[in-house]
Amino acid sequence: MRMVKMASTKSWVPIPSSSHFSLANIPFGIISSSKDATHRPAIAIGEQVLDLSTFSQNHGFQKLPDFQHVATRVFTSSTLNSFAALGRPTHRIVRRYLQDVLSENTSYPEVLKNNSSLRDVALIPQTEVQNHLPLAIGDYTDFFAGRNHAFNVGTLFRGPQNALNPNYNHLPVAYHGRASSVVVSGTALHRPWGQVLLDPTADPKVPNFQPARRVDIELEIGMFVTKENALGRPVPIGQAENHIFGYVLMNDWSARDIQTWEYVPLGPFNAKNFGTTISPWVVLADALEPFRTAGLENPQELRSYLRESREDNQYDIKLEVDLKTSDGDVTTLTRTSSRNLLWSWPQMVAHHTVGGCNLRVGDLFGTGTISGSVPGTYGSILEQTQAGKQAVKLTGGGERKFIQDGDTVIIRGVAGEVGSGLVGFGECVGTILPAIKYTSE
Amino acid sequence: MRMVKMASTKSWVPIPSSSHFSLANIPFGIISSSKDATHRPAIAIGEQVLDLSTFSQNHGFQKLPDFQHVATRVFTSSTLNSFAALGRPTHRIVRRYLQDVLSENTSYPEVLKNNSSLRDVALIPQTEVQNHLPLAIGDYTDFFAGRNHAFNVGTLFRGPQNALNPNYNHLPVAYHGRASSVVVSGTALHRPWGQVLLDPTADPKVPNFQPARRVDIELEIGMFVTKENALGRPVPIGQAENHIFGYVLMNDWSARDIQTWEYVPLGPFNAKNFGTTISPWVVLADALEPFRTAGLENPQELRSYLRESREDNQYDIKLEVDLKTSDGDVTTLTRTSSRNLLWSWPQMVAHHTVGGCNLRVGDLFGTGTISGSVPGTYGSILEQTQAGKQAVKLTGGGERKFIQDGDTVIIRGVAGEVGSGLVGFGECVGTILPAIKYTSE
Repeated sequence: MRMVKMASTKSWVPIPSSSHFSLANIPFGIISSSKDATHRPAIAIGEQVLDLSTFSQNHGFQKLPDFQHVATRVFTSSTLNSFAALGRPTHRIVRRYLQDVLSENTSYPEVLKNNSSLRDVALIPQTEVQNHLPLAIGDYTDFFAGRNHAFNVGTLFRGPQNALNPNYNHLPVAYHGRASSVVVSGTALHRPWGQVLLDPTADPKVPNFQPARRVDIELEIGMFVTKENALGRPVPIGQAENHIFGYVLMNDWSARDIQTWEYVPLGPFNAKNFGTTISPWVVLADALEPFRTAGLENPQELRSYLRESREDNQYDIKLEVDLKTSDGDVTTLTRTSSRNLLWSWPQMVAHHTVGGCNLRVGDLFGTGTISGSVPGTYGSILEQTQAGKQAVKLTGGGERKFIQDGDTVIIRGVAGEVGSGLVGFGECVGTILPAIKYTSE
Repeated sequence: MRMVKMASTKSWVPIPSSSHFSLANIPFGIISSSKDATHRPAIAIGEQVLDLSTFSQNHGFQKLPDFQHVATRVFTSSTLNSFAALGRPTHRIVRRYLQDVLSENTSYPEVLKNNSSLRDVALIPQTEVQNHLPLAIGDYTDFFAGRNHAFNVGTLFRGPQNALNPNYNHLPVAYHGRASSVVVSGTALHRPWGQVLLDPTADPKVPNFQPARRVDIELEIGMFVTKENALGRPVPIGQAENHIFGYVLMNDWSARDIQTWEYVPLGPFNAKNFGTTISPWVVLADALEPFRTAGLENPQELRSYLRESREDNQYDIKLEVDLKTSDGDVTTLTRTSSRNLLWSWPQMVAHHTVGGCNLRVGDLFGTGTISGSVPGTYGSILEQTQAGKQAVKLTGGGERKFIQDGDTVIIRGVAGEVGSGLVGFGECVGTILPAIKYTSE
């Protein structure tokens, strides 16, 4: 395919300067709308979306002739998997083309800017669309790459001298998570029932069966895989970027009291699998390129398969977590940056596949909790409250040691500066509903 | 749908008395054949398969009119997911109908027994077919329900007093495994590369990057889910049987040296995700009903959601593990029974969903390693060799502390007695190939 030149940074679509969806972004998602319940691909632009199903079926990609014939196939799908599977070089061309089409001085005004009949059906206000999971997720893997978080939590339980396990700086620790219960922003979740050890000092230890009391959040970034590798064929770290489609915000809800009792010796299970919330718009890897930065320094010499040539292997995404009570009080719990990671995405891909494990298009990785090193920057309430010892004060006068029924957690993430075209994720929102009435019938 | 009466136990298809695929079995799988590369459903019967795609398209289900119209849809699919999704009452009717069609005194001789043109194309010798993964797997969960195994391994590392963790008798411990690398019997796997701590006493601990030296097997039974539950809606234990499609044999390959270094604190990851082998034929839950038995007794009073009314909540499947060297020597490593489990399938389903986690059709559960309590009955080499201390003697004169390159592991599982119609799984076979030549390019 031929390359499309980069157009201006100003769009003919009205875009507020505070919008996460500037012309520099062009994130992909799956929508339905009040007029059409079909799940279909779209991009977000300003306060609207461009319906790619309608756009592609009405010759929107006519100036990208090599792509036009596949566009109607991949953009009439109900997930982004087919588009993702085309690979990063194609995503790059399509994103640049859409930037051109939407830019003020577009090379192709006839495609959309001056085509009012297509504009009328393909551009839809975001208030009229519903978002759905952007990809069908194969496997979901959650890492533990936020070293400040690992250190903070390790300090709580083992003291600062033994906070990090001996393997921590040598490999990106990870576990397999639950793919079926990954939900899109806006999906409410019930407080989970489970086994909880109320008295850890009792002998013998006998758990209670009850709704979890210590429901927590985990502030994370998620990544979708765009290219498979064959079973038995590791992805070398130098090629790992080719396997990355794009990124979302993630809230990896965690029931700490269930986790404490269940996790020895095989790791967290029901403490995590009741739900994981992701933001709806996948920000393509290319869109974050301008925001590269160095992450946390690793004092350890790494094994060869984890060594990277570049130092700017993280992104500087400003992250913010708000808690909104059922009374409507909003308190910002956390402000931090995604640079607070020890391990990069290419390192995670290289490690995940080094033993031969095959990745598939649509697999989801999570970073693990992202925390800074001082109060006000922690990505979990566990850290903020010192494991429930010190309550967080809310603006409305209340306080929280963990999440209460009716609480809504809103994560926002954005790169760039207002005025120069933000590249953001929008919001990742989830509400915890009361536990269901459990019956054994 | 109307019920079909149970036919005789003798088939007009020749079935050797030692065959795992008697008329009492009727297991479902996915095949392709030398004449037709299409992946399609089939059942195994004696030394042949009945191609259900050909059978259904040629009016094989004409005497089951309510099912005939869906049969051509679900049996021209490349996986069994669509058939599984029809639910257990339908599976029961279809299995009984196929038993009738294949029985000596069939009610419908015109369907297949006396229909030589259909017999010629629909009945295919097993030597001419290739098996494929029976279902598209959503999530794969591995339990730790073999208490003897948990005790044996716990004793090796912590002594018999602390062998079982405090949670063990209270809940079916489990972790999320890797679905993408579940492979069908016959698929060879490369020895995985990974980080291994050669000197655990060194300070600081520095791992080596190398092929794993301690590749092990885990003898398990797998279960496929046939019915979903909505997110947030636990499956009560009394309804759990309705969510079970059927069973397979499983070898959950494990690199013990990678596991030891990586698994703290989030559980096994690369030690397991390089491959899990399953047998190709799914034995329906109904086919194992006659072989119910009690499992291991749990001294613990269980929380309400795990209490079952029946005591015969396990199956007596005779299990056998052979190791075949590249020289062709075959040594039986293990003979045991699947009754060596503490937790039943309904308990696993109830626990997995108790916090609200949603299961989907095609999800795979594994029991965890099944071991007896004496030498010769252990489901892992780790237990047999006391963690590599005592080599296993092979019939050909060699010995093994773990799996060597070129070794083939063959698991067999069968219920019933020769002469009265065996219900078996056939074989679950896997070979470990040498590690690939690793390059970082």
